[in-house]
Amino acid sequence: MIPIVCIVGRSKSGKTTLIEQLIPEFIRRGYRVATIKHHVANFEIDHEGKDSWRHKKAGAQTVVISSPKRVALVEDVSQDFPLDELAARFIREADIIIAEGFKRDRHPKVEVFRKGVHPHPLASELENLIAVVSDEPLQMEVPCLSLNDVTGVVDIIEERVLSKHRDR
Amino acid sequence: MIPIVCIVGRSKSGKTTLIEQLIPEFIRRGYRVATIKHHVANFEIDHEGKDSWRHKKAGAQTVVISSPKRVALVEDVSQDFPLDELAARFIREADIIIAEGFKRDRHPKVEVFRKGVHPHPLASELENLIAVVSDEPLQMEVPCLSLNDVTGVVDIIEERVLSKHRDR
Repeated sequence: MIPIVCIVGRSKSGKTTLIEQLIPEFIRRGYRVATIKHHVANFEIDHEGKDSWRHKKAGAQTVVISSPKRVALVEDVSQDFPLDELAARFIREADIIIAEGFKRDRHPKVEVFRKGVHPHPLASELENLIAVVSDEPLQMEVPCLSLNDVTGVVDIIEERVLSKHRDR
Repeated sequence: MIPIVCIVGRSKSGKTTLIEQLIPEFIRRGYRVATIKHHVANFEIDHEGKDSWRHKKAGAQTVVISSPKRVALVEDVSQDFPLDELAARFIREADIIIAEGFKRDRHPKVEVFRKGVHPHPLASELENLIAVVSDEPLQMEVPCLSLNDVTGVVDIIEERVLSKHRDR
């Protein structure tokens, strides 16, 4: 099993922006990174008019596109899948999986919090919270880091998520 | 193993257009359809600025997007994968896989041919050719159907590809 950490937080709190900063720092430290993004609503991917888009439009339930440099898949499903199942089915050759969202999942979590977006963090509702990243200091039971302390966040994930996996 | 048929032909011969017509006919006959499209060059998928696009841009090797209705994946790879491997890894819950391209693959093939695009069909170069679909009648060792004979093409695929799978 590849270790998984979830970056959670309310809408517009800056989850994607944090993940964009975490990925290059993990890569700098020698990790291969995969991500899993949760969408609550349906989403569009692929471009209108492309061959793969036309296959899907014609009714294919699953469309795979394969080239020597990239593989892609679009599949219609009838349920929301848990992280473990998505990871097991789709991800190989990664050292860490950073998930965006999945706040009700059991995996370790970092919450992104911005006072300007919402007055209170989700923290108390979250199982397995290991840190909060915030635009202002908070009194928490877990470490609270500044929004731009990317190395600090990666340090905590290495210590709390990756080293435990190595020890197993 | 899910049965696979490849729709092959020279560039601009109309492979995607035929597949767009085959898919609804298979669905009408009760089959669940998946497709695999081969790209010789790199390809873009996803939309600039989207969260998943930003993950990939930041360096994630694999990005998975999950919603209750659709799952998608984009993965950077370092080799071209054979059809069997793509099918085994990515496709489940389909009754037939229609592949676009993969002319050197061992699976049964239908060639799409248009005289206006190229003077000669690929046919003699193809292993396991079961039919040619052409804009003009050709003398071939395999059945030659008209470009708009979609039910005829599906009949041949059912007989030559799907019934053999059922008999195994």
